[in-house]
Amino acid sequence: MRILGIDPGLNVTGFGLIEIAGDRAVYVRHGVIRTRPAEARAARLLALRDGLLAIARESGAAAAAIESGFVGQNVRSALLLGEARAAAILALADAGLEVAEYAPALVKQTVAGFGRGEKEQVARMVAFQLGLAKPPAPADAADALAVAITHWAHGRLAGMPQR
Amino acid sequence: MRILGIDPGLNVTGFGLIEIAGDRAVYVRHGVIRTRPAEARAARLLALRDGLLAIARESGAAAAAIESGFVGQNVRSALLLGEARAAAILALADAGLEVAEYAPALVKQTVAGFGRGEKEQVARMVAFQLGLAKPPAPADAADALAVAITHWAHGRLAGMPQR
Repeated sequence: MRILGIDPGLNVTGFGLIEIAGDRAVYVRHGVIRTRPAEARAARLLALRDGLLAIARESGAAAAAIESGFVGQNVRSALLLGEARAAAILALADAGLEVAEYAPALVKQTVAGFGRGEKEQVARMVAFQLGLAKPPAPADAADALAVAITHWAHGRLAGMPQR
Repeated sequence: MRILGIDPGLNVTGFGLIEIAGDRAVYVRHGVIRTRPAEARAARLLALRDGLLAIARESGAAAAAIESGFVGQNVRSALLLGEARAAAILALADAGLEVAEYAPALVKQTVAGFGRGEKEQVARMVAFQLGLAKPPAPADAADALAVAITHWAHGRLAGMPQR
């Protein structure tokens, strides 16, 4: 059973794929999709959607999860994040995956506990939980792995072992 | 030459189709796509994308235009508008249409001049410019017609007569 996690963004969207083996989460792959700021909005959203659709289709994932909500006060940033989120959600849906949503605070809490929850701390805890030699990079991909771990941890997948 | 205008929103997305005949803009059709707030985000975005894709494909449009930007200070509203905008842009792109973007203030100015530019004023001016007996409703569809008129007026279509 594989879970594809997504940390969406118009400039950089992170993805992280894990596989549940018994009561363990095993790392499969991670990476980012970048779009070019010089291109028109429609071209960037198509590149994001089509790139993620290809990754989702070849991932073998049975479930997908994405960060919801927005941390900040900048209305323009929220608008752009919304656009990237929709492009990602539509790609996952077009790949036949159900899409679960988790608030950023919940993702941080799940992988790093009630600590300060900084970016590096999340990446370190993702590495620890997946048995990686070093924290995954860039941060967007580490966050995407954290989203996938969160989906596993919250046991929304029917019949999956709880952590 | 037909132009499809879009006023995006997660709850209600307006569309308006006009046809350029010589130096006149002629009304073809208008309407709205509604999504159900009780449904999951992915289902709503799919309904919006698929509904608009069908309308775009049967529209005979050679160009499309959409309202850009966000008027307001509410970060959550901006995030939702961004999601609806991306679903609409991807539908238009999937239908093979280039997507032009116009700020709400420019659309109001184009169809209603430098007046107070209230919703009813925009709908009245759309009716006047298209020779309709009464203002089109609901407001989202009237705004979509205004976006289509704006695209025509700004002469971005190669070889089109300028107003």
